[in-house]
Amino acid sequence: MTLDPAAPARTLGTVRVVGTGLLGTSAALALTLRGVDVVLQDVSPTAMAIARDLGAGRFPREDDDPAVVLVAAPPDVVAEVVAAELQRWPRAVVTDVASVKGGPLQTLRDKGTDLTRYVGSHPMAGRERSGPVGAQADLFAGRPWVVAATEQASAAAVATVRALALDCGAALVDMPAAEHDEAVALVSHAPQVAASLVAARLREAPDGAVGLAGQGLRDVTRIAASDPALWAQILAGNAAPVADVLESLRADLDDVIAALRALEHDPSAPGARGALVRVIADGGAGRDRIPGKHGQAPTAYATVVVVVPDRVGELARLLADVGASGANLEDLRLEHSEGQPVALAEIDVLPAAAEQLEEALRERGWTVPR
Amino acid sequence: MTLDPAAPARTLGTVRVVGTGLLGTSAALALTLRGVDVVLQDVSPTAMAIARDLGAGRFPREDDDPAVVLVAAPPDVVAEVVAAELQRWPRAVVTDVASVKGGPLQTLRDKGTDLTRYVGSHPMAGRERSGPVGAQADLFAGRPWVVAATEQASAAAVATVRALALDCGAALVDMPAAEHDEAVALVSHAPQVAASLVAARLREAPDGAVGLAGQGLRDVTRIAASDPALWAQILAGNAAPVADVLESLRADLDDVIAALRALEHDPSAPGARGALVRVIADGGAGRDRIPGKHGQAPTAYATVVVVVPDRVGELARLLADVGASGANLEDLRLEHSEGQPVALAEIDVLPAAAEQLEEALRERGWTVPR
Repeated sequence: MTLDPAAPARTLGTVRVVGTGLLGTSAALALTLRGVDVVLQDVSPTAMAIARDLGAGRFPREDDDPAVVLVAAPPDVVAEVVAAELQRWPRAVVTDVASVKGGPLQTLRDKGTDLTRYVGSHPMAGRERSGPVGAQADLFAGRPWVVAATEQASAAAVATVRALALDCGAALVDMPAAEHDEAVALVSHAPQVAASLVAARLREAPDGAVGLAGQGLRDVTRIAASDPALWAQILAGNAAPVADVLESLRADLDDVIAALRALEHDPSAPGARGALVRVIADGGAGRDRIPGKHGQAPTAYATVVVVVPDRVGELARLLADVGASGANLEDLRLEHSEGQPVALAEIDVLPAAAEQLEEALRERGWTVPR
Repeated sequence: MTLDPAAPARTLGTVRVVGTGLLGTSAALALTLRGVDVVLQDVSPTAMAIARDLGAGRFPREDDDPAVVLVAAPPDVVAEVVAAELQRWPRAVVTDVASVKGGPLQTLRDKGTDLTRYVGSHPMAGRERSGPVGAQADLFAGRPWVVAATEQASAAAVATVRALALDCGAALVDMPAAEHDEAVALVSHAPQVAASLVAARLREAPDGAVGLAGQGLRDVTRIAASDPALWAQILAGNAAPVADVLESLRADLDDVIAALRALEHDPSAPGARGALVRVIADGGAGRDRIPGKHGQAPTAYATVVVVVPDRVGELARLLADVGASGANLEDLRLEHSEGQPVALAEIDVLPAAAEQLEEALRERGWTVPR
């Protein structure tokens, strides 16, 4: 386990957390759990009090002398807060956890800030529940934590921020700010826009149409339920890289629309079907690049499908039977059926284990379609 | 349970299934299970033999006299096959299960086909595994099955197709062909294009960038792993409705790109942030339209998050503990952590049950972050 509280903290001295929202409070909880002295600060006294009551740390004192300051402020003020903290604590290393790294860095440079003690970072973690109430000590457990060190940062400052990320249970990723911003535009910001745009089409849809929605639409639009104000800040803070990705996407979208309009008027329009095949095939090739579980290359698991009556305890009984069969469950998805008291459980196991699992479940009375 | 083999079949007489791929063989299995006499036909003798060996039905005989013909042929040939079957079996009701309904209907009309005995339909079901080998008797259990009757169809023909859908365990949805095609463009075809376009951006991405991929990207791009040739046919067969949805999406995309480019050059560009907020908020409003489990209006479930060590039997143990607590699990998602032997289980329960469940799990030793 990553978050073994018994393991000694790598972080030495007091950590000051500025901004006790979801990320700040979660980091504070993780550090406190390891015995680090954590000071909490927030412009909202309520958020600060909630974080303290959750056990995330203590209120500031006159004699505080933090070794590290973790700034977890909204993207549009993060550079100001980092500059103020660098000035206020002349011995502290300062990091921030904003989801955009290039813009705040440029703002600091424009201000003429000495960047020896500043190392920006970005933990790739989040939840749908925001604020200190959503915080959890293991929010970062096993998640990538990007450390975006500049050439101006001292080796000691970089080591301090890396230690803090490790103390939060995260997996370290070293990546310059510009490269980080292009990466998150690709894997997070542009997908957010696409999901929102697909979901937005459903606003005016007839009830009958949305009634045909299946798991595919649910998956594509799940992240569309995100906070608009926060996301406007994130997108605005990473404007150019996100626009680059979306323009590339729009070029393909134009091709698809042109092919469809050509087919509308002539079902044998030359090249049109080829364009559609290419777009879907390119998507499959891109999808194959996403690493599988535990950061490995994607593994082809075998999926065992089981019919699960929608009654208390049935899913638990199924999982107990899977466990008893000796098969190691790699993943599980539940597909609910519209209008029926039944769900389908899709159980991923290593291909070699699938047949034996299917037999074992049938023996125990489960409906396992062949 | 929907697929109670002991329940008498509503379908009377022999059913001829033309096309023993995933859908045709699954319907054949469901009908055979209910005691219906099912005849299998496919242009591929191998696919036909596999379907028979799976227990889906029998080979054709000279004296066959089907009461119903179910055409499960690829979208681009379905109208031809329907016309041929109507002509060959002058007493049979003919349906098809193609995912597009308007185009084939128009082709039949253009041919001057008598539509008294034809009722198109579309079961909203599928799997990643295709062909007869992927077939399962309960593929349609609880899924919507659209029956797209025309004014020309006889009442008896409509009743026959509805009975067949019910015998396959599906939930009936009556919807005219044009309305159906607009609905699936919105909830299935356009989302498929969007997912493929997002995933296609990852093809040339640096390894470090895809290494930052989280659950959001995985969800958005899951269906990008679909079959290009089949999807090109589906999109081509529903060209105008899909193009309409994609053009509406492109108009919003243009707004987003314009806002981002404005912000790139002027972080306080008037109206730009407002445009971004609107797009994300519209997406949330659209997402809220998607019905929840069992076709009800979306219910706000409370999510209980539990840390699950990645060891054999741990998930089963968790689910057993959830069952023992008396809470009825509404949904379950597993979030795997990159590079760490731990997963997060997100358990949805009714809000009133959440607190008690959290306490019960903590008492049994589970890590349930507050």
